[in-house]
Amino acid sequence: MANHTHDVLGIGNAIVDVLAHTEDDFLIANQLAKGSMRLIDETEAERLYGAMGPAIIISGGSAANTTVGIASLGGKAAFIGKVRQDAVGDVFTHDIRAIGVHFETHRSVEGPATARSFILVTPDGERTMNTYLGACQLLGPDDIDDTLVEASKITYLEGYLWDPPDAKDAFRKAAGIAHRAGRKVSITLSDSFCVDRYRDEFRELLRDKTIDILFANEHELKSLYATSDFDSALAALRQEGALGVVTRSEHGSLIVSHEGTKAVAAHPIETLVDTTGAGDLFAAGFLLGLARGIDHENCARMGALAASEVIQHLGARPQTSLKDLAAESGLTIS
Amino acid sequence: MANHTHDVLGIGNAIVDVLAHTEDDFLIANQLAKGSMRLIDETEAERLYGAMGPAIIISGGSAANTTVGIASLGGKAAFIGKVRQDAVGDVFTHDIRAIGVHFETHRSVEGPATARSFILVTPDGERTMNTYLGACQLLGPDDIDDTLVEASKITYLEGYLWDPPDAKDAFRKAAGIAHRAGRKVSITLSDSFCVDRYRDEFRELLRDKTIDILFANEHELKSLYATSDFDSALAALRQEGALGVVTRSEHGSLIVSHEGTKAVAAHPIETLVDTTGAGDLFAAGFLLGLARGIDHENCARMGALAASEVIQHLGARPQTSLKDLAAESGLTIS
Repeated sequence: MANHTHDVLGIGNAIVDVLAHTEDDFLIANQLAKGSMRLIDETEAERLYGAMGPAIIISGGSAANTTVGIASLGGKAAFIGKVRQDAVGDVFTHDIRAIGVHFETHRSVEGPATARSFILVTPDGERTMNTYLGACQLLGPDDIDDTLVEASKITYLEGYLWDPPDAKDAFRKAAGIAHRAGRKVSITLSDSFCVDRYRDEFRELLRDKTIDILFANEHELKSLYATSDFDSALAALRQEGALGVVTRSEHGSLIVSHEGTKAVAAHPIETLVDTTGAGDLFAAGFLLGLARGIDHENCARMGALAASEVIQHLGARPQTSLKDLAAESGLTIS
Repeated sequence: MANHTHDVLGIGNAIVDVLAHTEDDFLIANQLAKGSMRLIDETEAERLYGAMGPAIIISGGSAANTTVGIASLGGKAAFIGKVRQDAVGDVFTHDIRAIGVHFETHRSVEGPATARSFILVTPDGERTMNTYLGACQLLGPDDIDDTLVEASKITYLEGYLWDPPDAKDAFRKAAGIAHRAGRKVSITLSDSFCVDRYRDEFRELLRDKTIDILFANEHELKSLYATSDFDSALAALRQEGALGVVTRSEHGSLIVSHEGTKAVAAHPIETLVDTTGAGDLFAAGFLLGLARGIDHENCARMGALAASEVIQHLGARPQTSLKDLAAESGLTIS
């Protein structure tokens, strides 16, 4: 399966999302920081599920969502992540394969259950995530398939991989294989609290050229450079060798390199329902464009289009063909 | 819990829905009759799930959806239905309780798994259902809580209860208790194929006055009276003692009694996404209005409003407060 070329290989936490609308009061009563992702254990997962409203269940996981977006856009994608052999693992596996993503990571047969993220969506469309990592904690270097990395134009990794114990070793192994094969390596910083936890390590990844393409939103970028001033953070990013892609919600995105900074507008939407997956889907469009040799501005337009679909309904997976949607907007991938 | 009054007690199959968008070609290739519900076994469930696209998982079940709609409208509702003690049963139980529906039916600890319905939604918004009844097959008269029926102004039963072996006995038991307590009994015909299977029994329920309020759509009503002529079917319905409520999708609804027929318009929508649950939510609004003594036309308006919310997103459970939505439209329940 790995001997044909993939546009993108995503490596990340394999998670099924449990999403519910909630009022801001619920976040306050449960001391949850709006817009963030916090890690929870199984006991807290049960407590929170019991307290939250009726939910809908949709496969998620940041890098996994990105590979699904790429497949929906008509690209070829693969994913590495760990689920257990249980009912939730069946759901994750079905959904990612059903859209055509190559997913063959060995499933654990014992130990913690497949990961779930309990996502609370407030009336402003913002999502607050509570993640039980479960089986994701078992992802390690042995799960990295060398030939799959070599056969993928871009290997894309999520910052959240720093949370489980051995996944960062899997990350480093994959990055090494990719570079030796002349491939590109990309990372998303995932979440400003995640950057707080691993700031030095993420900056080291940039300094030592492990990362060719960096995705971040404003909060994550400011956290990375430990500054409250966005322009200072941008200036610092320009000094790195990497291509920076900074997403700014309704203000669009910035493409940042040592050559300068280019702004690209957001894609118009009718109603914001749920921002879950916005960054993941932006990365999907941008990375597929990059893998196919499209210029950076059109990569960002493709990213904005993919993000616009996913924020207009609950859940982080597209509910319509992004390829058709892109064609309607005059954006095509060849 | 049963000693305060419920507006409506729903009795039905307790099902979790697995919904996926699909093209018409998929229905044709799998020989599925669009818009219908067919019963499948576990082997076919696995085959179909493997063949269908990425899905979202949301609690469902026709009468269960109705009770959830009533709770969302601010009413008091209870539900009787059978799930097993498994992961899918946990999802069903969480969701229905989380919105405030009283649900205490004894869960089975062995035997078939909790029911799932694999629902294929075509681009026209029509849904085609493939239901594995699982644990629903264990629902029987012993599950009917006498005091709960007595404490509920209306007992609402789905025609689908004729499919599992003993649920119709539960249905008859509940109807008897309700009438002896001076309460009303209502049924939805569920599906025209279901009416084909049990036509004589459903007509007998009307003849012997087991049913006070009948919900049906055009296809089901024509099937009930074995005629292709809608006006003939309406004329036959007018001869029954029951109050008839006939839903006609975008053409609104008809309130049919021996006094005559009254048409009420549909509630306007922006985009039809998925008709799953349209009839269930119409019944929710109508029945709550009826339980609160509102006139039939306003009952139908409340039903149309509830249906309009649920057909604008995937899944048969409301994603916003129907009470707030009703208030915005000037419809209030006191």
